[in-house]
Amino acid sequence: MTETDFLTALRALPLHPAARGLRDDTARLLHVPLVVTTDTLVEGVHFLSDDTPQDVAWKLVATNLSDIAGKGAKPDGILLNYPLSDDGWDRAFLAGLAEVLTACGTSLLGGDTVTLPKGAPRVLTVTAFGCDTPAPPRGGAGENDALWVTGTIGDAGAGLAIAQGADGPPELAARYRRPTPRLAEGRVLSRIAHAMMDVSDGLLIDAARMGEASSLAVHLDLAAVPLSAPYRAFAGDDRAARLAAATAGDDYELLFAMPANVVPPVVATRLGRFARGSGLYLHDAGEPLPLPARLGFDH
Amino acid sequence: MTETDFLTALRALPLHPAARGLRDDTARLLHVPLVVTTDTLVEGVHFLSDDTPQDVAWKLVATNLSDIAGKGAKPDGILLNYPLSDDGWDRAFLAGLAEVLTACGTSLLGGDTVTLPKGAPRVLTVTAFGCDTPAPPRGGAGENDALWVTGTIGDAGAGLAIAQGADGPPELAARYRRPTPRLAEGRVLSRIAHAMMDVSDGLLIDAARMGEASSLAVHLDLAAVPLSAPYRAFAGDDRAARLAAATAGDDYELLFAMPANVVPPVVATRLGRFARGSGLYLHDAGEPLPLPARLGFDH
Repeated sequence: MTETDFLTALRALPLHPAARGLRDDTARLLHVPLVVTTDTLVEGVHFLSDDTPQDVAWKLVATNLSDIAGKGAKPDGILLNYPLSDDGWDRAFLAGLAEVLTACGTSLLGGDTVTLPKGAPRVLTVTAFGCDTPAPPRGGAGENDALWVTGTIGDAGAGLAIAQGADGPPELAARYRRPTPRLAEGRVLSRIAHAMMDVSDGLLIDAARMGEASSLAVHLDLAAVPLSAPYRAFAGDDRAARLAAATAGDDYELLFAMPANVVPPVVATRLGRFARGSGLYLHDAGEPLPLPARLGFDH
Repeated sequence: MTETDFLTALRALPLHPAARGLRDDTARLLHVPLVVTTDTLVEGVHFLSDDTPQDVAWKLVATNLSDIAGKGAKPDGILLNYPLSDDGWDRAFLAGLAEVLTACGTSLLGGDTVTLPKGAPRVLTVTAFGCDTPAPPRGGAGENDALWVTGTIGDAGAGLAIAQGADGPPELAARYRRPTPRLAEGRVLSRIAHAMMDVSDGLLIDAARMGEASSLAVHLDLAAVPLSAPYRAFAGDDRAARLAAATAGDDYELLFAMPANVVPPVVATRLGRFARGSGLYLHDAGEPLPLPARLGFDH
């Protein structure tokens, strides 16, 4: 079954009001000021078998906290579902877990350990909690709002290629292996953004999703997509390099909508705007572009 | 690494105050009246590959809600981490999920779907929330408190043998496949119990854990262990049958401590008492018994 079919079927089940129709990355619990999110990483699917256990721990926690950042929430603990294996892997994982919890200012709440059948790929789950949040929804953008993104885009996608053997700057591989959830930026932006989400599947697909959830069209300028110096050194700065960056995913930056006359108080780049209508419209310094066949990672 | 070693190592990490030192089945969140618990089931480890997907869904949700029942909490939604596979399995799983959510009066909050590499065993996680709870801890028993258990013990253990091919009453297999979390009993008992937990790993091991957490000895009368009529028909009623029942696990009944002069307002059986000292002491109608080599399922 595809994820879309499965989600459609899930929507026919008893659904919690806080689930927001399963259309958001997080659920905001009722009666309590708490958001919750959960992500599972599978060996050979979401991480490489030769990624270090420290990096796997970092990524597992950081990707969940990125959803918490997308809600402007303060992280308030994680649950870990962990498959026990050999001592070396487990101890290295624990070292990475300590690093990322400390770096992100959060802590372990509980979890579960299991033993997998011999040879089975590792499957790891983290559930993260965030508190004290105004939780701007993905679908809150207004007509004429500007679309912004924090940081730079495409680094992690290039980093994956480098992790898989391509020749390129190690900073890019580090951005793939150890994404930084934009927690401080999320806290500030949540007070002024109309809509916000983290960019995990690719800038174009996530921008299209924000437009769809907001029932508006999104106009995005490819020339505005912020590229890092290491990315330019690795992939160049032409249209193909920009399209690759904008569709690669794993950026874990924050995408947000705010009134056109407001400048966000964090390092961010204005990418385009929301308008009446529907769909994603791409242009490159004024010239309309056809959408690429693949906007990002579609589950 | 063993679970014990892993938990010891986890306790050296940044630990949330609500984690209670990772010594409980649930975490009680701070500032909000919410308990949370999470359990992972692995194909070939926690369920049989030929168990029906409906039963797997039931068991996955019911075992988590049993921890919620152990805290006397009202279930308030679940998160599901689900590996997508073939349509038939997924649809049957969804049907079972709808059944158990409806039967237990709770609903879906959110979750994550993944795709596993071909041939990998299914790994499924549910995280359950409970609200409005006084949350009696596992370690709250007092000296001279009586030890009680709801329902009957050993049915699921016998049911597993029957599910694996032994000849016996189908009611027992049903208790293994579709445990009933004692939610209503938990709500009532949480107001009067000093300590409470669900019995998942075996009556003896769980009673020993409650004693240890309460820094008291537990004296337990094997003759008092409540056996169902189908269990007696399957396994008999002698000492061996009682020891098998008391060490089998998967009962998902509630074990609780309360003052000796109080009779609980639910169907329950008095098993013994807490006393100064430490350790589990077993007797059979007055005669002291040595402890069996295996008290239950030790992770």
